[in-house]
Amino acid sequence: MTENLKIPECLIGFLGPAGSYAEEAASSIYGELIPFNSIMEVMEAVNLENVDIGVVPIENSIEGPVGVTLDLLAHDYDLKIMGEIILPISHNLLLNKGSSIEDIETVYSHAQALSQCRKFIENMNAQPVATPSTSGAAELVKGKKNAAAIGTQRAADLYDLKIAANDIQDYKNNVTRFVVIGNEDQEPTGHDKTSIVFSLVEDRPGGLYNALSAFAKCNVNLTKIESRPSKKKLGNYIFFIDFQGHKADKEVKNILNNIKNKTSYIKILGSYPTEGDD
Amino acid sequence: MTENLKIPECLIGFLGPAGSYAEEAASSIYGELIPFNSIMEVMEAVNLENVDIGVVPIENSIEGPVGVTLDLLAHDYDLKIMGEIILPISHNLLLNKGSSIEDIETVYSHAQALSQCRKFIENMNAQPVATPSTSGAAELVKGKKNAAAIGTQRAADLYDLKIAANDIQDYKNNVTRFVVIGNEDQEPTGHDKTSIVFSLVEDRPGGLYNALSAFAKCNVNLTKIESRPSKKKLGNYIFFIDFQGHKADKEVKNILNNIKNKTSYIKILGSYPTEGDD
Repeated sequence: MTENLKIPECLIGFLGPAGSYAEEAASSIYGELIPFNSIMEVMEAVNLENVDIGVVPIENSIEGPVGVTLDLLAHDYDLKIMGEIILPISHNLLLNKGSSIEDIETVYSHAQALSQCRKFIENMNAQPVATPSTSGAAELVKGKKNAAAIGTQRAADLYDLKIAANDIQDYKNNVTRFVVIGNEDQEPTGHDKTSIVFSLVEDRPGGLYNALSAFAKCNVNLTKIESRPSKKKLGNYIFFIDFQGHKADKEVKNILNNIKNKTSYIKILGSYPTEGDD
Repeated sequence: MTENLKIPECLIGFLGPAGSYAEEAASSIYGELIPFNSIMEVMEAVNLENVDIGVVPIENSIEGPVGVTLDLLAHDYDLKIMGEIILPISHNLLLNKGSSIEDIETVYSHAQALSQCRKFIENMNAQPVATPSTSGAAELVKGKKNAAAIGTQRAADLYDLKIAANDIQDYKNNVTRFVVIGNEDQEPTGHDKTSIVFSLVEDRPGGLYNALSAFAKCNVNLTKIESRPSKKKLGNYIFFIDFQGHKADKEVKNILNNIKNKTSYIKILGSYPTEGDD
């Protein structure tokens, strides 16, 4: 999960509460884990140096980007992405020990987890209800015979629930990518990627073709592209791109110089070791 | 809101319940309005011809795409986009008549509305809690002195709540684009756009540059580009593009032929009259 990431023992803020997928991701780093109630609170704690680093979700292979993480990194904080953690997501149906699946009328979980198990919930003939977190859902259903939660093994343990079904997500290959956020740049390791965000000079996405030419000319692979609304008007976007290489590499410096002339705004979110096979 | 869209009187399914923003959008079309509980149920009703058309949200200028609408159009249904409706979103804080803002501990609304009013809720020192719809939130807070909902004027009327504050969204220029979904193609009107979804031949977004060249060479403006996870693996995307022109236009036919050679999968979601200024 974090083969290449080297971070010394530290204080780690994560999107809590205890039992969340973010805790599972953060526990692969050595240090004291401190839960926060929201992605913004994690970033604020890193920004104020109340913690050394933060671990927050940035994209899921099924549901797509975590908009609030992207927006906060682009608009609100000048923090660095120092690493990534790729966590396979296996959703479990959590019930009180006296209940069975036939009793369930309502399924509680985070909106993304509910969405990822949509077909399973439909087949149960149950009503999905969104909660702020998966582990919050487990806490909520404790003692309610007709309610179930979707969450982690750890959440089941914490709230003394049983796992009535596992791997209940509709699609296989469900992984979430978390980023490690801090205040310092990472040195090149030889297997790095760089994350940037930019907006185009032109008002319309037509200019994206020109911006992408900077990468195509150097044969540099993009590992991610996301468009997000600029929050100015409909049809006005900012683009998040990840690509292979470290910002200290000569070729990457050339690309970044080239792309600067084609964008009205550009921010380097960080260069950091690549995990997984992308 | 629907200057260019011409649809004869018909049965219109919309993402309910009564009092939702989708109802406000759908009410600009002449016909009988029928609420459904989810975007999928609206599409299923159109598919089964239980209603003539459906009205569902597809993107918001602040929050970005509505993933479930894009995914259902790409993967699950062969329906046509027949038109678009652009609705300015003005969020209101709805309270019971005996309550004041100082009493409020919890604010209920749809996750997107909560997210769009994040700073306002933080300043209230209240806890946001997600509900399946904005009008569902209004129903839920009825009679609860310490709870507020975020929703429409119509929802306030329906549940006899008062509007304690209006235009409470964090960003101005908050508009939602709805699409009208049906089973028939629309004839060219001279001011049309076309929506397509495609995936690339190559495994990586590098091929996006080549696909966009089909538009750049013809100087055709893209009015939207979104990447969505393909649900196969992390870093594997499908792309939604809107551009000016009707699929019956000669130039658009050429672009579509050109792009077919650069994509492993392409689906034309529809050609329909453009609303607004994009």
